[in-house]
Amino acid sequence: MNGAQAVLETLVESGVEVCFGNPGTSEMHLVSALDRVTGMRAVLALFEGVATGAADGYARMADRPAAVLLHLGPGLANGLANLHNARRAASPVVAIVGDHATGHRSYDAPLSSDIGALAGWVQGWLRQSCTARQVSEDAAAAVAAARTPPGRVATLVVPADVAWSGGAATAPPVDVPARAAVPGTAVAGARDALRAGLPSVILLGGPATREPGLLAAARIANATGARLLCETFPARLERGAGLPGVERLAYFAEAVEQQLAGTRHLVLAGARSPVSFFAYPGRRSDLVPPDCAVHQLAGNDVDVVGALTRLAGDLGANADPPPAPPAPPAPAAWPAVPTGPLTADSFAGVIGALLPPGAIVVDEANTGGRSLPGATARAPRHDWLTLTGGAIGQGLPVAVGAAVACPDRPVVCLEADGSAMYTLSALWTMAREGLDVTTVVLDNRAYAILQLELHRVGAAAPGHAAQAMLDLSGPDLDFVALANGMGVPASRATTAEELADQLGRAFAEPGPHLIDANFPAFA
Amino acid sequence: MNGAQAVLETLVESGVEVCFGNPGTSEMHLVSALDRVTGMRAVLALFEGVATGAADGYARMADRPAAVLLHLGPGLANGLANLHNARRAASPVVAIVGDHATGHRSYDAPLSSDIGALAGWVQGWLRQSCTARQVSEDAAAAVAAARTPPGRVATLVVPADVAWSGGAATAPPVDVPARAAVPGTAVAGARDALRAGLPSVILLGGPATREPGLLAAARIANATGARLLCETFPARLERGAGLPGVERLAYFAEAVEQQLAGTRHLVLAGARSPVSFFAYPGRRSDLVPPDCAVHQLAGNDVDVVGALTRLAGDLGANADPPPAPPAPPAPAAWPAVPTGPLTADSFAGVIGALLPPGAIVVDEANTGGRSLPGATARAPRHDWLTLTGGAIGQGLPVAVGAAVACPDRPVVCLEADGSAMYTLSALWTMAREGLDVTTVVLDNRAYAILQLELHRVGAAAPGHAAQAMLDLSGPDLDFVALANGMGVPASRATTAEELADQLGRAFAEPGPHLIDANFPAFA
Repeated sequence: MNGAQAVLETLVESGVEVCFGNPGTSEMHLVSALDRVTGMRAVLALFEGVATGAADGYARMADRPAAVLLHLGPGLANGLANLHNARRAASPVVAIVGDHATGHRSYDAPLSSDIGALAGWVQGWLRQSCTARQVSEDAAAAVAAARTPPGRVATLVVPADVAWSGGAATAPPVDVPARAAVPGTAVAGARDALRAGLPSVILLGGPATREPGLLAAARIANATGARLLCETFPARLERGAGLPGVERLAYFAEAVEQQLAGTRHLVLAGARSPVSFFAYPGRRSDLVPPDCAVHQLAGNDVDVVGALTRLAGDLGANADPPPAPPAPPAPAAWPAVPTGPLTADSFAGVIGALLPPGAIVVDEANTGGRSLPGATARAPRHDWLTLTGGAIGQGLPVAVGAAVACPDRPVVCLEADGSAMYTLSALWTMAREGLDVTTVVLDNRAYAILQLELHRVGAAAPGHAAQAMLDLSGPDLDFVALANGMGVPASRATTAEELADQLGRAFAEPGPHLIDANFPAFA
Repeated sequence: MNGAQAVLETLVESGVEVCFGNPGTSEMHLVSALDRVTGMRAVLALFEGVATGAADGYARMADRPAAVLLHLGPGLANGLANLHNARRAASPVVAIVGDHATGHRSYDAPLSSDIGALAGWVQGWLRQSCTARQVSEDAAAAVAAARTPPGRVATLVVPADVAWSGGAATAPPVDVPARAAVPGTAVAGARDALRAGLPSVILLGGPATREPGLLAAARIANATGARLLCETFPARLERGAGLPGVERLAYFAEAVEQQLAGTRHLVLAGARSPVSFFAYPGRRSDLVPPDCAVHQLAGNDVDVVGALTRLAGDLGANADPPPAPPAPPAPAAWPAVPTGPLTADSFAGVIGALLPPGAIVVDEANTGGRSLPGATARAPRHDWLTLTGGAIGQGLPVAVGAAVACPDRPVVCLEADGSAMYTLSALWTMAREGLDVTTVVLDNRAYAILQLELHRVGAAAPGHAAQAMLDLSGPDLDFVALANGMGVPASRATTAEELADQLGRAFAEPGPHLIDANFPAFA
């Protein structure tokens, strides 16, 4: 068998069953091999950023990597922003980058470039395959590297001649190390801090934002009076009925300072110590209050859930019944559906009222989504996936990947208009694959976050030229037409009633839908 | 004044008058300064790849750099593919990348990354500004670096605090070295080779594909019997009525071998020695015939036009009248407009028949455009801009930049469907800026080039899975709806008559238009 087939078969044997991609000539043998390998689903994206974001979303929901197939340096470049988000999410991703044949590299053909420099930027694992005999072992190593805690982007560069040469064989999976146990001293340190009786916060992140971590953390909080918070942009936050509610750390530094004011002990459980997203003139970057001691219980690369469970045990709380969550509301008791003009509140209220059980919510709603956390806290159980790395254009692709990973669950993608335009062709992949994704575009015709930030960084009041750079009108984007152009049925809502009606129909019907929720930026 | 204003004023004083951008929070002081600086036109793109491609197109037509304003590492990442194309075009581009404030970098906030690693990938000039007092000198140096022959991407990283801090002043322009004269030995070597009476080819590239170089080269060819060819993907080829016709080197290696078969002397004038775009099993990468001697008259970084003029002088050809070009046809004598179903031939025939005088043609037509060179050779004088680096998604953005550079000239963007989807939001920028761009999408609903390449690389006949990765139907993309969704009037043509009618109306009316030219891949 040739190297291409050996790579794909090895990926399948190592548990990689989906390949998102946008291949080119140097990947044609890998594409051809798709027909000879069983168990690998190939999903075409019309832009590499869609493929990499989809792999991120897939990993967050499937807890194992997908592959992405990319075309030389420029293809990898187009996928980098969402690999950056995947890195910040600690998502396992196996990036297969086709390269020129080894003998062709010295000719500096037009598409030649330093692929390693780009792959290095995402701070993951990188290997350049040299022979068809070796490439399957490289592929198995890539999967193991991607899955090694906490999870990372593993990039395997496959030259075209390595793919087309024969003499290859599949390689067995490579063992993945388990998450290391947290030292007892870290558990004891957190225990002593929380027992001190001073205002304390447990900040959850990484694997601790899923049910077992949340339950253990809630028991600790109940037993000690500590408050629970989770990181601003969790990769996957399990929430809703039946789970302890956990407030997210705010985005704006001033709001974080309010959230943490008076805190004397901060226990980090899978989360990093809070820092400002951006710097602002005269403001601190480190958001830990001056009198607050920080205790690292566990990073996101170790057994944080085990550490929380041991901590709860040390506090005598492990036998406690699960902490009282918000009562799982019966459907009849769900919040009333708001009416009237669409605003951030009524928008969020409609989402909270109608969110279907088991939904996966992909949240790139940005400013327009500011009321969502409260409005959805008592919705049926769901997962919430966020913009981990701040590189916009993540939502629609992550929704693609989540839907591929979980075909039996409804995906709801809440997407800001400006961010949507980065990777809009994800809609076409949703249509082609028949993915059950309901996209709601928060269409305020502005980079509203920048309208806020311009003031916050202390810049002068914007004149015409500056305003034009923050404005998405003139011409207005017609997301109904754009969705229809990619085969996705779409409609527009300007009132809460219209949004509720259109959402209800989208949830009832399989396959992708888009709703253009049109309301002013700060309504 | 603050650093932001000093940067913009310095750019203007150094001759940079346009800034394409997609800024974020770290660039807000630069955005705010737009209102206090006269002479800088800011053009918003909805994705960074549009901004960088526009800067490339602007530079090709204006012969000076535009600035692009990008948001940290991920913003630069999104713009890299078209910076790669700009690098291969030797286009001067000044990339201003906002970064976190210097004191904020050590906190590894979510958007932090190694910007230098990305900037290094395009092999240009890179500087990270450190203080507001220094930043304007850095900006002047960046412009000079971008303009230093042959032209390059100069990246200036501006931390947010450098932009917002006061005490800055503008800096004067930095001198740009002229193109160095070519050594007499190189001119003599080319002269002796061409005088040998053996089959010879002069391969033109870089600055030699504009009128002065073409005329000098044509005189040399006339005097010696050498054939003229130009590089496969010229950054800007001047052609049409009144200019010597120059055949482009073919894309496929087999075709290049036919073009060059029997050639004994190959004189390189601004072009690199021909290599295969991709490698193929059992085929050579170096496309110079085995018995052919290669003579480097001039690289693209030196005075290649001067060298050609001297060579013509040495050959006694400089006093010759301009070589007979194709007679400039009177409008009535233009080729008849084809009729019947759209095919590659009838499509190209319509373009050739109707191309308006002074048009700038941006060619990312790929397989569907294979008949264009012949069909447009006798059209009125025009410029032809091509996909220099092979990173698709270049056409629409380059058209934006060309139209901004040349507001009085019609721009015709011939864009393959698959490539169009990479940077489609360029249409919105065309609409916002009222740019006179007529985009024709060659809508064959496939990555047709890959359907060819799959066979050429020796891969097995594709089955269902492989075919699906090369196919853009299911669902069909509706480019009329997509264009309308971004404010661009659009129509669909399936016959030559329809295309001619719609093109005529688009050319007659200012502002952007799109025509979806729908015909099968290999018709």
